[in-house]
Amino acid sequence: MTPKTLNDLLTWRYATKKMDPAKAVPQEKVDAILEAIRLAPTSSGLQPYEVIVVTNAQVRNQIAAAAGGQAQITDGSHLLVFAAWDNYTADRIDEVVKLNVDARGDLPTLRGYYENLKAAYLPREARENHDHAARQAYIALGVALVAAAEQEVDSTPMEGFDPAAVDEILGLQERGLRSVVLMPLGYRDPAGDWLLPMVKVRKPRKSIVTEVA
Amino acid sequence: MTPKTLNDLLTWRYATKKMDPAKAVPQEKVDAILEAIRLAPTSSGLQPYEVIVVTNAQVRNQIAAAAGGQAQITDGSHLLVFAAWDNYTADRIDEVVKLNVDARGDLPTLRGYYENLKAAYLPREARENHDHAARQAYIALGVALVAAAEQEVDSTPMEGFDPAAVDEILGLQERGLRSVVLMPLGYRDPAGDWLLPMVKVRKPRKSIVTEVA
Repeated sequence: MTPKTLNDLLTWRYATKKMDPAKAVPQEKVDAILEAIRLAPTSSGLQPYEVIVVTNAQVRNQIAAAAGGQAQITDGSHLLVFAAWDNYTADRIDEVVKLNVDARGDLPTLRGYYENLKAAYLPREARENHDHAARQAYIALGVALVAAAEQEVDSTPMEGFDPAAVDEILGLQERGLRSVVLMPLGYRDPAGDWLLPMVKVRKPRKSIVTEVA
Repeated sequence: MTPKTLNDLLTWRYATKKMDPAKAVPQEKVDAILEAIRLAPTSSGLQPYEVIVVTNAQVRNQIAAAAGGQAQITDGSHLLVFAAWDNYTADRIDEVVKLNVDARGDLPTLRGYYENLKAAYLPREARENHDHAARQAYIALGVALVAAAEQEVDSTPMEGFDPAAVDEILGLQERGLRSVVLMPLGYRDPAGDWLLPMVKVRKPRKSIVTEVA
């Protein structure tokens, strides 16, 4: 596969509305997308989320029912569920410290950094910490959308679902996780997708960029 | 420039700790990064944020002071400030409707979609809407970090700053915006950057990915 420019990838991708249920995404392409998610940067390197890859048809049916019946969830072959930590805890941060110590050695500055982080995060409300973790998951979502396009795989970022219901279906609460965004993977069904022929709509640069020179 | 794989880009980039104040990022590279931000997908296509590109030295000094003196803000040549909408409003959503109507025609389904969106968003607390807008800005941040790497430009995503102070410096409150994340652009100073020689640390796949097959 010849690498494409990011501009090409962002222009090619779109929020696929109709996927072809007869076409499955090969495992190596799913793996490449998951590797991009794994490499995505996050605040203080916490990677405060997990991704649940759902292929099970019955579970995807249940999730689709909790998402207004959006058919990409079942017409695609894989559903990625981004689930952010419900809160920061000393154990979770200490695991990241251990990972760093194992990779880089036991540096006092590293320990000090994460001790300060615990002092800042642990007294905060769970909601504030979860919101912060969710933002990090959205960095990974942005990277994953590019990764899917690079693999010529279609995808649809989805927020229109009942997070509590999805958490229940996947048993996320017990794992200290809350679903924040869904990303079905599959292949577009050109004949059935009303959005595909439409021009991509984006604001002109002057609407979103200002300069302070 | 030969396109690189996303994996290459994510491996090459790192949160640059020391930038070379003698090297400025060429405008065409900044433009390419801003174009990727412009093309980044967002929920319902709202693009509910703006990016302020600060090159002014005095303003960057002020922002650095509101960010614990982090030197990349002043050693880099450009500072991107991602500022999310403080709330959703009918006017803001109607502007997006207009953009869609201009590009795609006046489709009843399109109007209906955004009327439903207003009915859902406008009664919510400003905080909830701002949090939602901020998440969308983080999608663009993820895309922007990849875009910078593609341009072989170094960058540092930064949350460690006083948002109220930055909002004040840039006059964002009057524009209905709140700063959510900073991204200085520049070129690494290999001799001065303690992080550069260190191995990149990421969790193993099994820590963040589970499968429901």
